[in-house]
Amino acid sequence: MSKGLPKRSEDYSLWYNELVKKADLAENSAVRGCMVIKPYGYSIWEKMQAELDRMFKETGHSNAYFPLFIPKSFLSKEASHVEGFAKECAVVTHYRLKNAEDGSGVIVDPEAKLEEELIVRPTSETVIWSTYKNWIQSYRDLPLLVNQWANVVRWEMRTRLFLRTTEFLWQEGHTAHATKKEAEAETLQMMNVYAQFAEDFMALPVVRGRKTESERFAGADDTLCIEAMMQDGKALQAGTSHYLGQNFAKAFDVKFATKEGGLEYVWGTSWGVSTRLMGALIMAHSDDNGLVLPPKLAPIQVVIIPIYRKDEEFDAISEKANELMAELRKVGVSVKYDNRDTHKPGFKFAEHELKGVPLRIAIGPRDLENGTIEIARRDTLTKEQFELASQPIAEKIADMLEEIQTSIYSKAFDFRTEMTTEVNSWDEFKSVLEEKTGFLSAHWDGTAETEEKIKDLTKATIRCIPLDRKEEDGVCVFSGKPSKGRVLFAKAY
Amino acid sequence: MSKGLPKRSEDYSLWYNELVKKADLAENSAVRGCMVIKPYGYSIWEKMQAELDRMFKETGHSNAYFPLFIPKSFLSKEASHVEGFAKECAVVTHYRLKNAEDGSGVIVDPEAKLEEELIVRPTSETVIWSTYKNWIQSYRDLPLLVNQWANVVRWEMRTRLFLRTTEFLWQEGHTAHATKKEAEAETLQMMNVYAQFAEDFMALPVVRGRKTESERFAGADDTLCIEAMMQDGKALQAGTSHYLGQNFAKAFDVKFATKEGGLEYVWGTSWGVSTRLMGALIMAHSDDNGLVLPPKLAPIQVVIIPIYRKDEEFDAISEKANELMAELRKVGVSVKYDNRDTHKPGFKFAEHELKGVPLRIAIGPRDLENGTIEIARRDTLTKEQFELASQPIAEKIADMLEEIQTSIYSKAFDFRTEMTTEVNSWDEFKSVLEEKTGFLSAHWDGTAETEEKIKDLTKATIRCIPLDRKEEDGVCVFSGKPSKGRVLFAKAY
Repeated sequence: MSKGLPKRSEDYSLWYNELVKKADLAENSAVRGCMVIKPYGYSIWEKMQAELDRMFKETGHSNAYFPLFIPKSFLSKEASHVEGFAKECAVVTHYRLKNAEDGSGVIVDPEAKLEEELIVRPTSETVIWSTYKNWIQSYRDLPLLVNQWANVVRWEMRTRLFLRTTEFLWQEGHTAHATKKEAEAETLQMMNVYAQFAEDFMALPVVRGRKTESERFAGADDTLCIEAMMQDGKALQAGTSHYLGQNFAKAFDVKFATKEGGLEYVWGTSWGVSTRLMGALIMAHSDDNGLVLPPKLAPIQVVIIPIYRKDEEFDAISEKANELMAELRKVGVSVKYDNRDTHKPGFKFAEHELKGVPLRIAIGPRDLENGTIEIARRDTLTKEQFELASQPIAEKIADMLEEIQTSIYSKAFDFRTEMTTEVNSWDEFKSVLEEKTGFLSAHWDGTAETEEKIKDLTKATIRCIPLDRKEEDGVCVFSGKPSKGRVLFAKAY
Repeated sequence: MSKGLPKRSEDYSLWYNELVKKADLAENSAVRGCMVIKPYGYSIWEKMQAELDRMFKETGHSNAYFPLFIPKSFLSKEASHVEGFAKECAVVTHYRLKNAEDGSGVIVDPEAKLEEELIVRPTSETVIWSTYKNWIQSYRDLPLLVNQWANVVRWEMRTRLFLRTTEFLWQEGHTAHATKKEAEAETLQMMNVYAQFAEDFMALPVVRGRKTESERFAGADDTLCIEAMMQDGKALQAGTSHYLGQNFAKAFDVKFATKEGGLEYVWGTSWGVSTRLMGALIMAHSDDNGLVLPPKLAPIQVVIIPIYRKDEEFDAISEKANELMAELRKVGVSVKYDNRDTHKPGFKFAEHELKGVPLRIAIGPRDLENGTIEIARRDTLTKEQFELASQPIAEKIADMLEEIQTSIYSKAFDFRTEMTTEVNSWDEFKSVLEEKTGFLSAHWDGTAETEEKIKDLTKATIRCIPLDRKEEDGVCVFSGKPSKGRVLFAKAY
């Protein structure tokens, strides 16, 4: 199965593309830039959704659903918003097809032209704030804490499965508050929810930071983000949380009666993560043999494979496997018995390795005699023999899964540490970037001009100003002008 | 709160529209025909989704995700399919906006015209079967059992919240099988899953039936359906399951190597239910005071309302309410304590009645003295006093919820029985239809011609040929020609 998977060291980009396809995660569709998320890939996304949804609800949010289409005029109401999204919008202009009169097939009916074109939502601020205008009258209606799970479309010229696709799945939270302070706190809270999800479930260490002005969301006054490091030394933005100030409230005239009897514009936030997280998950942990999944997001945590020649052996092994499965399910471990008779054990081993099943148990006739099983760890590719009698095996396996979760995180954390370099001169900046890329922690003079020059020269961008950065006097690596603290530069996905 | 809700007997249609809005279920958006599903409405849909999703998975299906867009040429590949959907397609023709040169605002960039127009999916058979071509090579790849939760768009001229909207949410199952028999069994199985869901969770009795040829899905060889009766005597199609034969396999050239070494076209099914179910749920059970929800789908099953004048009373009541909530949650009952100090009890009573919370508990100072609580049932609008000491109250409440579930179902079942009339002549057909509408069980000669004439004359259509109908010789109520059994006519949503 893993045959044909290129090595990361030889061609990281090809390795990623092949892995996504061979592990049955996703594939390109016949529609340019749109992907098909295959059942196995989708089952991982469902686990992500379930955890995030729980976290959103625990922080007081409810789900709702808003239209796919946005009238063109809505998009234009917030000036920087339309500036940011107009260049990549799918536009619906007609609402009917008809048979061509010359019999050449089906054509767009020119008589069914829309009076106003509709945009397929690239994000929903405009359509949601136009709705909030009707929902919000008084301070009693606030805060309004709503999330939406939806598909969005941004017409990307260069696409890559999960990382950048024309259509993608995401959630977008849109909240409205009575005070600036509350909206700022919400922005920070949701960034922290994302960081906690990335670290606890995806086993992905992230830097919590703030975007520079030029990297902000179109229409936001402030954008917080979480940034992760991939195995090729490139950074990946894994989630963003925007403080919108009163921008959309003003664009859509959303005011509320205050407790004191005044009338004020509402304060807003929006925040989102997308199927891009799948790309981050895959790239952060996987190896040349295939996917490595953190147990908390693995659709199947344990696979049991019978090793046998004779039918009687198979029956005895199956009995043992069934016992074991019942015990594992009791402690909340998801397990599959791969009893297909159409494939050999070697094929199955490779397949489950490719698909990143955290633990593989093999049971053969000798195991039955000796009362043992063999357990192989996907992340370390190590095997161990266990005596069934010596310990409560289900709990042992549950512990191993927890250990794998922690161990995958630590490995990614150590890698990121190794890939983060403090640089103090322009020469150092360039040589580290060339040598190993990664995060470059450097002083910057705070101007968009310097930021852009560095980007033009090196393709490195400021990923974020870390929220926990130390105040430290220094000079900008590029301009030599004074700086109050370091920011993180990197090449990025 | 319920002020302003029209009576069903006076204007059923207005009653429905107002109820949907006032109970915070959904509202029209600024985009013609597209609705906003509000948080409370969406939370009911989420409960429906969760149960259906569980049932799909228990019958072996996995979720996946396919593109929103369909190339125009794909839609045309299956002749009757394009015939059925071309007239109501949203068409994407451009992929960019730009600033008008005359400064008049944002316009569609004429240079960003797509070579081939894209259709926003009205249903996904074509894009999915074009994918299945790559997924299916051999009998080992079958059956392929996939479901998708998605939004779809059909450009409807007359729309109504939930019942008929331009964009709606749904699930669409798409399966591929090695044999005709298996595909037919799947079609039947999924219709039964829908029926079971409608009856067990929505408390909605349904007729399991088969569509006539003229009412079939565009591209199907056979369409099974479930049909429900609404309070105004109109029928509502609540779910359909299509046997596609080899139609889409042939259109997209999907063949598989058989066990015996041959090469054959695959057999297909598709099946779906949508947010239309929300309309059915609302219309089937609700009354002039508002929504009536079956407890199994109610986001909040029990609401507790404190009745007090003094702060000390409130504290004591809250203590009792918290105890009660803990007990209820232990037995799996969802409960909310409505302790808002901004609204009076009367307002809260009306609000929760409008929103269909199955049980309302009021606790006042006298209840604390007497060790009692007052429980009001939403479906029957009856109240009862309970002594807390006399019985384990949480279990009593759980039992009451079950009783409500059953009772709502029985009420709907009795209503349907009352509204189903065997008619044996054309005069009888017309008079029953005029007098009370409902289901008319009548003999039909089996021709599309008669079916259409009846529709033209009366607006009644054949809802289905019930699967459990008796063989019975008779004559068609319209043509007088021979018939082998009765079919169900009705006016329908």
